[in-house]
Amino acid sequence: MGEFDFIERLRASFDGIGDPQIVGIGDDAAVIPLEDDVLVVTTDMLVEGVHFLRHATSARELGAKSLAVNLSDVAAMGARPLASFLSVALPVELRGEWAAEFAEGYRELSARYDVKPAGGDTTSSLGPVAINVTVVGRAPAANIKYRSGARPGDIVAVGGPLGESAAGLRDILAGHLDTPLAAKHRNPQAQVAEGEWLGGRLEVHSMMDLSDGLAGDLPHILRASKTAAEIELTAIPTPVDIELAVAGGEDYKLLLTCDPTAWPVLAADFEARFGSPLYPIGRIIPGSPEITWLENGTPVQKKWHGFAHF
Amino acid sequence: MGEFDFIERLRASFDGIGDPQIVGIGDDAAVIPLEDDVLVVTTDMLVEGVHFLRHATSARELGAKSLAVNLSDVAAMGARPLASFLSVALPVELRGEWAAEFAEGYRELSARYDVKPAGGDTTSSLGPVAINVTVVGRAPAANIKYRSGARPGDIVAVGGPLGESAAGLRDILAGHLDTPLAAKHRNPQAQVAEGEWLGGRLEVHSMMDLSDGLAGDLPHILRASKTAAEIELTAIPTPVDIELAVAGGEDYKLLLTCDPTAWPVLAADFEARFGSPLYPIGRIIPGSPEITWLENGTPVQKKWHGFAHF
Repeated sequence: MGEFDFIERLRASFDGIGDPQIVGIGDDAAVIPLEDDVLVVTTDMLVEGVHFLRHATSARELGAKSLAVNLSDVAAMGARPLASFLSVALPVELRGEWAAEFAEGYRELSARYDVKPAGGDTTSSLGPVAINVTVVGRAPAANIKYRSGARPGDIVAVGGPLGESAAGLRDILAGHLDTPLAAKHRNPQAQVAEGEWLGGRLEVHSMMDLSDGLAGDLPHILRASKTAAEIELTAIPTPVDIELAVAGGEDYKLLLTCDPTAWPVLAADFEARFGSPLYPIGRIIPGSPEITWLENGTPVQKKWHGFAHF
Repeated sequence: MGEFDFIERLRASFDGIGDPQIVGIGDDAAVIPLEDDVLVVTTDMLVEGVHFLRHATSARELGAKSLAVNLSDVAAMGARPLASFLSVALPVELRGEWAAEFAEGYRELSARYDVKPAGGDTTSSLGPVAINVTVVGRAPAANIKYRSGARPGDIVAVGGPLGESAAGLRDILAGHLDTPLAAKHRNPQAQVAEGEWLGGRLEVHSMMDLSDGLAGDLPHILRASKTAAEIELTAIPTPVDIELAVAGGEDYKLLLTCDPTAWPVLAADFEARFGSPLYPIGRIIPGSPEITWLENGTPVQKKWHGFAHF
């Protein structure tokens, strides 16, 4: 939009990031040349007061987070993120330093994963800040992991500890903005390289990222795959209480299911490659799409649901 | 987002629109298979109170318009729109009928141009409605029209009458919501088929869509192409006053430059194909990127700038 050409202003600082074959900012649309692979596209909107509190996060963290959540979605498909498109609606009073800090956070993460900021839109807002990011990724067609691929017998695994972000949000809402967990909430780490690498492993049958908590997200795989799951609570990696680990949101760790015979090799290769383990937490079983929670092998009743924003 | 799964709810009504090879809603990201062509991607954000007044537009018109402005950008590159991604932040009180009407407007236009609604995000808003649409299009690489392609001698042409939308906005702001021009403002018609067709014509050297008015948009081509232009005001097609035609926004007509020797054939072929003419309005000339306005061939001084939203 003519009145506040934020994206155009940022063009110079975005130079040199990502595939130089992509023609980005400056025409009506970006142009991404391809050969035989498939593209994946994801989009995510963050709204002030719904997804973040402006007093509780820095503009720089928010810039990085708005991209990170989309990189996580692309990685969860088994693809490599190529290019991003950023739309921002900003109140007039934030056009100066706040906008510059936001852009710097976005730029840093773009550079870290070599993802080209290829376009966007900026506008005024008469109310809250609203941010929308679209990320386009690419992968060989055979690498793409759908939610519908889980099969009975599959190992269910997660890519890292759960619940830290939710515990951090709890700290923030209690007014404790400077705790280590609050920093984790504000700085989600998408498993970008891990997702692309797992995309290349045929024994991984389904994958997604955990944004709404295991209790909210695993049912997406179960419904799409027409299977059930049993999850062993004592196997879930978490430094916080189990309810936050299972029902808390915004972990952005990978959730995947894997052929059981290939699991030991996959787990060993993953740890050798990334220096941290995949955590097996349960198993896909036949049945209607529900989770049976186990505590040391014994079914327990839990009323856990997915995460809903404040 | 878990709390209001608007996109998921719409999935059934979106079924059957667009290329069935595109895997859309239901995974972390949509998947678009391709061969040798290039993709183009564009994104545009509309915010209540900045781009539209909720009392002055129906939800259905707004749903169509939010897609139309992006289809226009893809067409202006010479490409065919393939898939769209819709993010909406909605106040709680609009989740019912208003959201359903919005979706219906979006669906109708998607079906009309056979563009697949392939994903999106929905969230609450504590303030105004915010809408972001991303459209992915495709074209043979040779068809893509950049702003940088204009050459001295090129004919400058537009795809239809200018200024109607701006005149309609003037009516709306004066409280006259039901005039024919106000309806034009609320229902922009993107030149989708025209843009794709013009993409296939090598004699078209540069193209864009007119969203901020000729006086604001033509300089984008001039700067990118390092050329100047002279524009004959009496040649500009408009049913309203010339200032609205030149400086008003949201026409979404194509603006293009064409090799002068090939112009007569292009113009004839276009009119034969689409039943309405391309309008020649001036010429690209060497020089610094400025517009010389002519009135019956005589330069006139004008202080026109592009359109800025209210």
